[in-house]
Amino acid sequence: MEFVMRPIGVIRSPFTEKDKTPIQASRSQAIGYVEVEPEFSDGLKDIEALSHIYLLYAFHESQGYELQVKPFLDNQKHGIFATRYPYRPNPIGISIVKLLSREGCVLTVEGIDTLDGTPLLDIKPYVPDFDQQTNTRVGWYETRSKK
Amino acid sequence: MEFVMRPIGVIRSPFTEKDKTPIQASRSQAIGYVEVEPEFSDGLKDIEALSHIYLLYAFHESQGYELQVKPFLDNQKHGIFATRYPYRPNPIGISIVKLLSREGCVLTVEGIDTLDGTPLLDIKPYVPDFDQQTNTRVGWYETRSKK
Repeated sequence: MEFVMRPIGVIRSPFTEKDKTPIQASRSQAIGYVEVEPEFSDGLKDIEALSHIYLLYAFHESQGYELQVKPFLDNQKHGIFATRYPYRPNPIGISIVKLLSREGCVLTVEGIDTLDGTPLLDIKPYVPDFDQQTNTRVGWYETRSKK
Repeated sequence: MEFVMRPIGVIRSPFTEKDKTPIQASRSQAIGYVEVEPEFSDGLKDIEALSHIYLLYAFHESQGYELQVKPFLDNQKHGIFATRYPYRPNPIGISIVKLLSREGCVLTVEGIDTLDGTPLLDIKPYVPDFDQQTNTRVGWYETRSKK
């Protein structure tokens, strides 16, 4: 069984080198542009009323994976599924960014943490009632996830 | 350009019919089981220290899409990217669930909102420092996202 994903657009960012790209959207104040293909333009209706959106994208420069990795924020190995490391069995990334404006098929966003040219797979609304969890434990991130 | 995704496991849930499946994980207290393929077992190292995880999966029973849809929670049409509706250009779903326990390759989770047999594509840690947004506006969800 396999699923074939085709980009619906591309993410433009100031970051052209992996090692100079922010580790997480929450650590970035960079402005980026989400260029949605014109054929999907109608799918953006009402998106401008949202303050934050999920971007789902392909880690297109991350081929291959190992099951245990030292993530950027630690010097110990962890299972890939306990990390956000980009080299994954299915290289899908998610970032939550602030939506500043929409002009036609182009969204201007703040807090971008992807490489310039990243293929966009999906956009979803960020809805705190659905997405904010309380009483969380974050394992190895405990001392390492602060900005 | 296309990206081929292959399931890393399957999600077991009490839900076998679409119209009886919860609309969001946040509205579900159902217990589910994430069965990761044994070949990916090492990738789960340290996951048990996390309280909440993202499941990324294929909406395998949602073929096709329209760019504007009436979502389950509203009777007005919105752009597909301003909704969480399952029929999408790239049918990837995300749910945040509570991780109760791990036994080998099987994770027991609470708050499952996927159909039984949903193909699992990825697991990522939920990290509030990265994922919790403030000062949000949620557009058409404003009066409709409460439990």
